Amino acid sequence: MKILYIYAHQEPKSFNAALKETALSALKEKGHEVKLSDLYAMNFNPVLTEGDFTDRKKPDIFKPFFEAIQASKAGAFAPDILAEMEKVKWADLLIFQFPIYFTSMPAIVKGWIDRVLAPGFSFNPITKNTYETGLLKGKSAMIVATTGTPQALYVEGGVHGDMNRHLESVTHCVFEFMGMKVLPSYILYEVSSFSKEKGAEEIDKYRNRILEL
Amino acid sequence: MKILYIYAHQEPKSFNAALKETALSALKEKGHEVKLSDLYAMNFNPVLTEGDFTDRKKPDIFKPFFEAIQASKAGAFAPDILAEMEKVKWADLLIFQFPIYFTSMPAIVKGWIDRVLAPGFSFNPITKNTYETGLLKGKSAMIVATTGTPQALYVEGGVHGDMNRHLESVTHCVFEFMGMKVLPSYILYEVSSFSKEKGAEEIDKYRNRILEL
Repeated sequence: MKILYIYAHQEPKSFNAALKETALSALKEKGHEVKLSDLYAMNFNPVLTEGDFTDRKKPDIFKPFFEAIQASKAGAFAPDILAEMEKVKWADLLIFQFPIYFTSMPAIVKGWIDRVLAPGFSFNPITKNTYETGLLKGKSAMIVATTGTPQALYVEGGVHGDMNRHLESVTHCVFEFMGMKVLPSYILYEVSSFSKEKGAEEIDKYRNRILEL
Repeated sequence: MKILYIYAHQEPKSFNAALKETALSALKEKGHEVKLSDLYAMNFNPVLTEGDFTDRKKPDIFKPFFEAIQASKAGAFAPDILAEMEKVKWADLLIFQFPIYFTSMPAIVKGWIDRVLAPGFSFNPITKNTYETGLLKGKSAMIVATTGTPQALYVEGGVHGDMNRHLESVTHCVFEFMGMKVLPSYILYEVSSFSKEKGAEEIDKYRNRILEL
């Protein structure tokens, strides 16, 4: 299988980095092909601007949706977007790994979605290519996330509410919207309180999950 | 009242820009004091990095939550963050206006929240300052958002699901989490299909809503 691993943590010595390294090794060990988008290391720019479109069709007024639909016909996107789009086209499975910031993605991941999974490329409401007929049909996607605080806060009836429900904004309204199959999110809670042993144990569990893919 | 208007659209000739201008005029007309954070115009950087903290307490390993808690004691944040924090401290009401990108905020708004509404400044789980005792208690917050597609997609049973439920990740898990009172979100659907007349009518309605604040 061809796997694109979209990873967002600033610190190479973090627990998130250890999870990522573990996953990359396990995937290669299983014979999968893997490409990595290490967003902070790449200095990925998450801000969608006019510069995303190299052949503006309405230069007098910037309409992002309109320009994306036009750009997708000729691949007229900025080089950093095109490079990521090539990885998406290549991949069978997209894994997004990030620490939860306010029950959601850090901005750098949201911006990767905003800019790379553009209208016309991953979905198109005009041609009715959404959900069952989304343009990324045939691919799968999975969230791997960590939190600093306990799981009890992120359940139905917990103070924040059900984490999986909050993540539907991504799993349903991004992944399924584009036709992708969603694998169950893999969430590690309270990682900042892990002892060395607990950390090693959880990394091993994650390795096993990855080996099952 | 003191109002901080956090605005995110790239195009000064957009419908979003017209809404923003209308709101700013109406607020001033009513005698409110207003500050504007026009995120694209400011080139606001939404990516949380080590550079956010000017006096790192653990220089060998970057732990964002830990550094934010430390930095908040001495105000040791990067100048762009401090400038926004001053506006937040000053304000009684925060209005966030943006176009919906995938049932959520564009990355530039998420990053403003990630970086400016930092642990120690707006909430602190260590000292139990969350929700009822959040550090922004006494302030209110409101989302004003636009979509390109019809409201029918964003209701319970619609393909995307209830928009207000998706926005709970912000209204509940950011605003209420920090102790702020949440005003009902003001969402304008399908704005890209508005005729000139419909647009003018909706701008007038929004003006009236703003005058009621």
